[in-house]
Order: sequence, then structure tokens, then C-alpha cells
Amino acid sequence: MAQTRILPAADNAHQYPLLIKQLLLSGPRYNPNQEIVYSNRSKYTYTDLVDRIHRLANALTDAGVKAGDTVAVMDWDTPRYLECFFAIPMIGAILHTVNVRLSPEQIVYTMNHAEDDVVLVHDDFLPIIEGVKDEIKTVKTWIQLTDNDTAKATSVDTIGDYEALLANANNQFDFPDFDENSIATTFYTTGTTGNPKGVYFSHRQLVLHTLVMTGTVASFDEMPLLRSSSVYMPLTPMFHVHAWGVPYAATMMGIKQVYPGRYEPEMLVDLLKEHKVTFSHCVPTIMQMMMATESIKTADLNNWHVLIGGSALTKGLCDAGARLGIKMYTAYGMSETCPLLSASHLKPEDMELPLEQQTAIRVKTGIAAPLVELEIIDPDGNPVPHDGEAKGEVVARAPWLTQSYFKEPQKGEELWQGGWLHTGDVASMEPNNTLTIKDRIKDVIKTGGEWLSSLDLENLISQHPAVAGAAVVGVPDEKWGERPYALVTLKPGEDVSLKDIQQHLSKFVESGDINKWAIPEQIDFVEDIPKTSVGKINKKLIRDQLKD
Amino acid sequence: MAQTRILPAADNAHQYPLLIKQLLLSGPRYNPNQEIVYSNRSKYTYTDLVDRIHRLANALTDAGVKAGDTVAVMDWDTPRYLECFFAIPMIGAILHTVNVRLSPEQIVYTMNHAEDDVVLVHDDFLPIIEGVKDEIKTVKTWIQLTDNDTAKATSVDTIGDYEALLANANNQFDFPDFDENSIATTFYTTGTTGNPKGVYFSHRQLVLHTLVMTGTVASFDEMPLLRSSSVYMPLTPMFHVHAWGVPYAATMMGIKQVYPGRYEPEMLVDLLKEHKVTFSHCVPTIMQMMMATESIKTADLNNWHVLIGGSALTKGLCDAGARLGIKMYTAYGMSETCPLLSASHLKPEDMELPLEQQTAIRVKTGIAAPLVELEIIDPDGNPVPHDGEAKGEVVARAPWLTQSYFKEPQKGEELWQGGWLHTGDVASMEPNNTLTIKDRIKDVIKTGGEWLSSLDLENLISQHPAVAGAAVVGVPDEKWGERPYALVTLKPGEDVSLKDIQQHLSKFVESGDINKWAIPEQIDFVEDIPKTSVGKINKKLIRDQLKD
Repeated sequence: MAQTRILPAADNAHQYPLLIKQLLLSGPRYNPNQEIVYSNRSKYTYTDLVDRIHRLANALTDAGVKAGDTVAVMDWDTPRYLECFFAIPMIGAILHTVNVRLSPEQIVYTMNHAEDDVVLVHDDFLPIIEGVKDEIKTVKTWIQLTDNDTAKATSVDTIGDYEALLANANNQFDFPDFDENSIATTFYTTGTTGNPKGVYFSHRQLVLHTLVMTGTVASFDEMPLLRSSSVYMPLTPMFHVHAWGVPYAATMMGIKQVYPGRYEPEMLVDLLKEHKVTFSHCVPTIMQMMMATESIKTADLNNWHVLIGGSALTKGLCDAGARLGIKMYTAYGMSETCPLLSASHLKPEDMELPLEQQTAIRVKTGIAAPLVELEIIDPDGNPVPHDGEAKGEVVARAPWLTQSYFKEPQKGEELWQGGWLHTGDVASMEPNNTLTIKDRIKDVIKTGGEWLSSLDLENLISQHPAVAGAAVVGVPDEKWGERPYALVTLKPGEDVSLKDIQQHLSKFVESGDINKWAIPEQIDFVEDIPKTSVGKINKKLIRDQLKD
Repeated sequence: MAQTRILPAADNAHQYPLLIKQLLLSGPRYNPNQEIVYSNRSKYTYTDLVDRIHRLANALTDAGVKAGDTVAVMDWDTPRYLECFFAIPMIGAILHTVNVRLSPEQIVYTMNHAEDDVVLVHDDFLPIIEGVKDEIKTVKTWIQLTDNDTAKATSVDTIGDYEALLANANNQFDFPDFDENSIATTFYTTGTTGNPKGVYFSHRQLVLHTLVMTGTVASFDEMPLLRSSSVYMPLTPMFHVHAWGVPYAATMMGIKQVYPGRYEPEMLVDLLKEHKVTFSHCVPTIMQMMMATESIKTADLNNWHVLIGGSALTKGLCDAGARLGIKMYTAYGMSETCPLLSASHLKPEDMELPLEQQTAIRVKTGIAAPLVELEIIDPDGNPVPHDGEAKGEVVARAPWLTQSYFKEPQKGEELWQGGWLHTGDVASMEPNNTLTIKDRIKDVIKTGGEWLSSLDLENLISQHPAVAGAAVVGVPDEKWGERPYALVTLKPGEDVSLKDIQQHLSKFVESGDINKWAIPEQIDFVEDIPKTSVGKINKKLIRDQLKD
């Protein structure tokens, strides 16, 4: 370690720990009357937000919550959830954002594993809890969330309704300072094998992630995502990686926020129109659902900028969106990375390009965000060339990566090797620093001694005008080791054959986008492609089904 | 202290210390070919910048510099200085930015006090060093900076010329990780009494300051200061609070940077025109000098946004600039605060206001930046009302405030009281969170039991069309305790009397901007107003001269 001159310990008394409460300072100062909207139900101002966060802190403290306790939330995407994003960590407790799309058994597993002390649960999820409540071991207190005047009757022994508790609570709470490395949030990743794994983030990590996100997504002329006149609506659930951390950034900047509640495509489009939403983030599936609605046809979407993550943004989807005026960008990250690692990056001059050429940039995984180091390495841990061709596993360093898996240090050691977090993604890096994810390591198809990217193949298949979606996995093959196997869903009313798709793919052999040997011989036209609870293609399940 | 759950120590191995080297990651990734310009002399790319920083690190290490050493720089505002901003702290050494406007005696004092080990000195400052070199105690190594092909002959025993050292150095340096609380920079404040005082900032502090500055100045639609298509030219010296830290932010974002060398107004205007500069920051004096040039009359300044600090932005200057198209904003901070505390803040709807009403917002000290807490307190330490009227001393908390004065802990204890940094500024706060600095505590004029702001009076006097500048101090008065005394400079060819100024001020009595008893009976029309080395009005000197 270099012998630097370090600030004298006595003076460190004036050091300022990075705490989530500081993210709540500036938004209400800049825009006390700015609105936070809950779907078509209600709205309030930033001044109200601060008032309600103080009340929630008092209500929880009155209910016995102490620093170090874990408070779980099961809710739709609501301003209430935003209040929990702040109030729970701000009293020193840990916010557990429960994945409500997991099976009841898995929800029980995560609650017991996280050692939840208190749970705030929405009426709609009470039936789940009622069915499993005897298996939940550590929860002492239940609080009910409702969207109706009267909370739903339940056999769960709650201490009351959220709104009533807030109404009765004092609206002044003196939020304490504490160690910035205190855990602020936890949630569970939804792998396709084994039990969910808990990741966790500290106050320091979330503050730094917010600052870099704000600078990054605000600072590019060609990506006016988070600006003072932006209107933000999340379209990835708040239980999943804090809705990518954007609610913290939006609140810090004092911009208008629209929380949609549950995701009903027609309703989401109506909210877009009514509030002139300018910035969202979502997985491709949600975008496809919204683009399939009737009401989107009459929407002016020219100012709607959308970060697409979770699965790859295909050229087909990006182009279809562009024709409606929607500006899409790839964002890259994962539950373990808080999540921001990189985003597709258009330079001012790129905005002058024809849409098709812009799409080629927008679908790339992009350039690492400030303070993020990304490298691609071979199985021996050596960097592979940044030539746009060579593939390697993406590894990352950044100030906001999960330090391990909660109570599973061994799995944490697999995640962290040689001081780098191993993402399990395979990518190439261009000389201009642009990353392109090619596949998950476990989804790469090893055929005839070559690595074939299942994502590349899905992307090309999805460009057929009749195709709605595609999933490609490797299946064992005696001669080649593995061969690609594609599941394809078609747009309503369309009908195509294996040969049509093969002919479509042949066109890309000439352009060099694909090798002839990569064209699949096996394509299954299906109604639905299996997805995980967070909307990713469930390739594990597809492989298992093909095995049977 | 709240008993939060803290990240397990073993896992903290993956924590990522905040280091200045991380600020150099993203700019070259986003824009490797973006230009960094040195006046009308030369330019290079971000790729070159990285190459030269690595070479400088090797050259310094070869010259014996180790982590913990102090390396001083005496240079104009150049890309060389930018290289020092990075390379010196990145090897774990401390960058001492020497105030070259101090007297030779004070320069010696700061070098000895900072315990400089190495000094990089420009040809133009060699005569100073030659005159005092026997008094400089700790410096072991001198490196010469030159703008000519051949370095100037000197009696100072240098190890050579900067460019030659870089040319001979390896362009790969493995910058180490170390404690983020390591001191990265130091410089000396130029008070009007006593010796200069050393302030210092850690890697962590500068990284956080940069992140918030980037988010803040980039994120407001109405203040497009630091965006990917911005062109940045500093107009406050790099030795003074790291040119407000903007070079770090600009580099992190990969935007075009123009370094002007020394400040010659005609040349500065030429650079503005040639490079279509969009963002600068300066003290009012520099702006006045540039606005007084011939060449500014043919410049298109509609995209030039300028943060004004150091002294108050007057309505007169802001309006005169607006007529030329220049968008000025007040920025508030001080050497001790790294410096960003607040900036004037226009909401999107404010941009629709007539220019005059915009000026009223632009000249206010503004709204605290994200992560900054500002309060105004009375002499007993109690907060005064935020009613826009009541005055109190401004106190601050933020993650980037100097922790003390170097080797002067007692003065540090006066700076920090009750956990807040005391700025010595008197201000009011409006209910909408807008701060307005009224005066320095020591410059407030106590007359007839009331506090009269010398800045308010200067501002009103400066609005007289014949007035170029004004300085007001309190002078002892038997009846009233103190009375205001004004020094006024006139624009070329103008001639006005005491009575003209008094009549001008009387108009503001009706509008409530001033009380009748505040109109000065004593006005001195002078050629020049005494300024400090950083361009602030030297009120101490004025009071001393009036005493004599």
C-alpha cells in the first residue's frame, strides 16, 4: 500500500458519511411543488413526500422498528414504495424489496433468509401471505397497504393500515447519522437454478450509484433522460434492483415522477399520454406489450426516451419503436451491480445519422459509466483483445457492486475472483470502448469447436417481419457437440415455415452477420416463450423441457 | 450511534476507494479524439492526455517523488496543469497549486509551510524563485515549464524541461489503489490578514465534488453548462480551488476543453470566438475586462454560459452581459468548500420571464447543491427564519469541506463549530430555499443599531449608468457608530457627482430596496478599487487607507 498522507483522524470528525437521507435534500429544495403521481388515483408534492417520509419513520419506530432491523415491502410501483425507499434505510433499518412474482414458497424462503422483522403488504398479496404465514419465522409485525378506502379483511394479524398509521404519526423525525457502509437494501436474485440469492447494498453504494446515474443520464445532449423538465415513469418493478435506482436519482433532482401501480399496457400508455412522460426504463417484453396496444397509435412519443435492459434490445424492437418516435437505448447491469454498468452512447454527431445506423449503436451494450471499470477476460483470467471480435467474460469493478450473497459467502467467492465481479456474460469490446454482450456464458452454444451467440441468433430471427419473439438454446448433437434450437412466436395472423426463417437468416450470411453453420435446423413455432419472474427468457426451463 | 447492520469486514475487500484516477476513466472512453486546446499554441486529444499523464507519473517517480510527497506547480492555465491535476495525486503525492499572484515572501511562506518536495515552475515565474530560492527550505527538485522551444536560462538548479522529461518517460504507469482519505491537493487561502492558510482536500472529497458538480450543472435544462457538446474554458485560475473543480468534471465527461494560458482580455475573447466556448466561470472583474474589449462586439455570445463567483454578480453586470447574449449565473463557495455550495437556479418556466426578471434570479446566491446542507444562524448558533429578510451567518455541511487548516488546528476549530463549517458570510434565506449573500460578517456596516449590507449598496450604486465599479466600507462615526463610505470608479469619459449618485440611490428608497439612512454622505471617485490577489475587493486595505 502506498504511504500517502491521510487526513488526521481528529479532523475526520468533519467527514460527512454518505447516507440516503442526503439524496432527499435537493429535490424538495429545487421544486417543493413538483408532483409525484400515483397512476390515475392521486398525486402529491415533494413537500408532501418529505412530510410522509418523516411520518413513516415515526410510524415504524412506534411499531418497534430499530436500526439494523429488516423491513420488507410487498407492493406495486407506488409513491408509498418511494417513501419506503427513503424512510426505512434513513432510520438505519434494511429495506427488503420482496419479489412478488416469485412462488409463495420462494417468497417464504426469501423472508426467512432475510430475517424480515416487519412486512408492509398490499391487499393484492395478502392471499399469498395468508396461505404461508405459519411458515414465516421472523416477522413480528404486519402493516397493510391498500388502494381502497377500507383495507381488505384478512386473517393476517396487522397493526393497521399504512395511511392510518401515517395520519397518526408525528411529521418530524430526526434522522441520525451512522456508518455509510451500513446495509440499506436487500433483495433476491431470481436465478434459474437453486434458491434465490440475497444481494445487498450500503448507503454509500446507493448514494454513489445515484450520483453517477444522474451525471451520466443527464449530461449527454443526445440523451436528455433526467433533466429538470423530465417526467419519469418507471416500468421495471421497484422490487427489482430499486427500479434500477432511478427513483433515487429522480428524487434528488426534483423532477416529476409518475408511478403506475401494476403494469396494464393500456393504462401505462394512457399515463404516458396524460403526463407527457419523457423517461422510462423497461425490459423488452413490456415495451412489446405497450407497442401492441390500440391507444399507442394516437400517442405522441417523440419525447419518450427509454432505457432497455434485462434482455438485449433487438434491432427489430428498436426500429419498430423508432417508427413511433420512441428513442430506445440499451442499459446494461444486473442485480449484483445495483445495476448500472454501461449504456449505449450516441455522440452528438450520431444523432444526424439515419435511424437505421442509430439503431446499430442503440442496440449495443455501450460504454461503461463513469467510475466503472469493465474488462473482458478469457477462462484463464487474461484480458482478450478489444477488436470487436474476440469474446470474453465481462468482469467489473465499481463502487456499488454487491459485496457477496447474503449468508452465502461461498457463492460470493465465485462471484468475486481476482478482485473483479464476474458477470457471467460473454461480450466483445470494440477499439472505441463499446461493449456488446453476446450471451450468457452458460447459454453460449458450442458447435463444431466454435462459440455461437444465442443472442445474435435471436436478434437476427426477430428481424423477420412475421416474428414476435425468439429464444435460442443449444441442444446436444453427436456430430457437432451442440446445435442451436429456436423457439419462435409469431405476430397475430402470421404464418411462416422453418424454411422461411432459414431463408431469412441466409441473407445475413452474405453480410457477414452470421456463419452458414449457425443457421438452425430445428425451429419450434410456439404460443409463448417461457420467461422468468423478471421477464427474461428462461433458457434453463427451455433446455429442461427439450430434454424431456 | 444507531446500531445499523454494517457490511462484514471480510467483504469490504471489494469496496472501491474513491480515487482521482477514476475520474479519468470515462472521458477518454466516451471521446478518445475529443480535443484539449492550449490557447492558440497547440492542441491534443484525450488519448494524448492519458498518455501524458502516465508519462508524467513516470517522470516524477524517476525524479524520486513518492506517495506522501508534495509537488508544487507554478504555471498559467494550461493542459500541463490539467496533467498535474491528475498525475500528482494519482501517484499518491499531494498537488500544491501555488498562488502565483502572492508576493514572493508569501510564496516562500506557502512553499515552506506546505513542505514542498518538488516544484514545477514556468519560465515566467523563475525570476520570483531566483530572488528567494535561498529561503525555500524543503524543495529538493525543480522542473522547468516553458512555452518556447528552448527553456529560459536560469540560476535555479532544475532537472530539466517538462516536455523533455515526458518525452523520455515510459507511457505506462500502474497507478496504485490507496486510502480514499489520502490528501490529494492543497493550496493557500488569501485572507486580508495574517499569513495565508493551507486548505486541503482528499481523493474522496474531490471525486464526490466532481460527481455532484457534473450532475448539478449538467442536469438543468435551463443551464446547459456541462454537456457532451459543451466547450469549456476556465477563467478562474487553476491554482485557485482547482479552477472550481470544473476541469475534473469536464475531463470525466470527455468534453472539449480550452486552456487560455494567461488572462489577456482580447486573447480570451478571440478564444471564445474561435472555439465557440459554451461554458466558463470567472470573477466579475474578468467579465468586465472582457466586456470592455473591442473584439467582443463582433462575438456571438448567445451560447456562452458563465458561472460568476468570488464576488457578487451585480444586476448591472448581469444585465449588461444579457444584452450581449451572455447567460450569467451566481455560483457560491469558497476556498474552504472545494468550492461548490450553491448556484442560482432558474426553473424551466423562469426562462420565459423577461430578461430583467431573470436577472433578479441570476444574481441570487441560489439553491444549495445536492448533498449540501446550508443554514443561516444567529450569533448564538440558532437558525434564523427563512423569510427572505432575517440575516444570519451561513454555515455548511457537505462531503467535500476542508477538514481544518494545514498545521493550524486552532484556526480550524474556529472554522468548524458545532459540526458546521462557518463561512463568515451573512445571508438571508427565502421560503423557497433561495439564499442571498448580504455581506461578509466583518464587512457588514453597523449604523444606528441596524446591519447595512455593503454588498447591497455596491450593487445599487453599480446600476448607475456611468459607474464601472463600487466598493463600500464602514467608517467610524460618533453619532451612528459607523457610516458607509463608497469608492466609485467611472466608465471612460463619464463624469458624475456625489449628488448624482445620491439621487440615483434615492430612487431605490421608494421601491424598498434601500433605507433612506443607508445613502452614503461620503463617496470617493477613484481610478482603481484595491483588489486582492484573487480579484476580490480588498476592504481591509481600503479601511486601513481611510484610517491613515
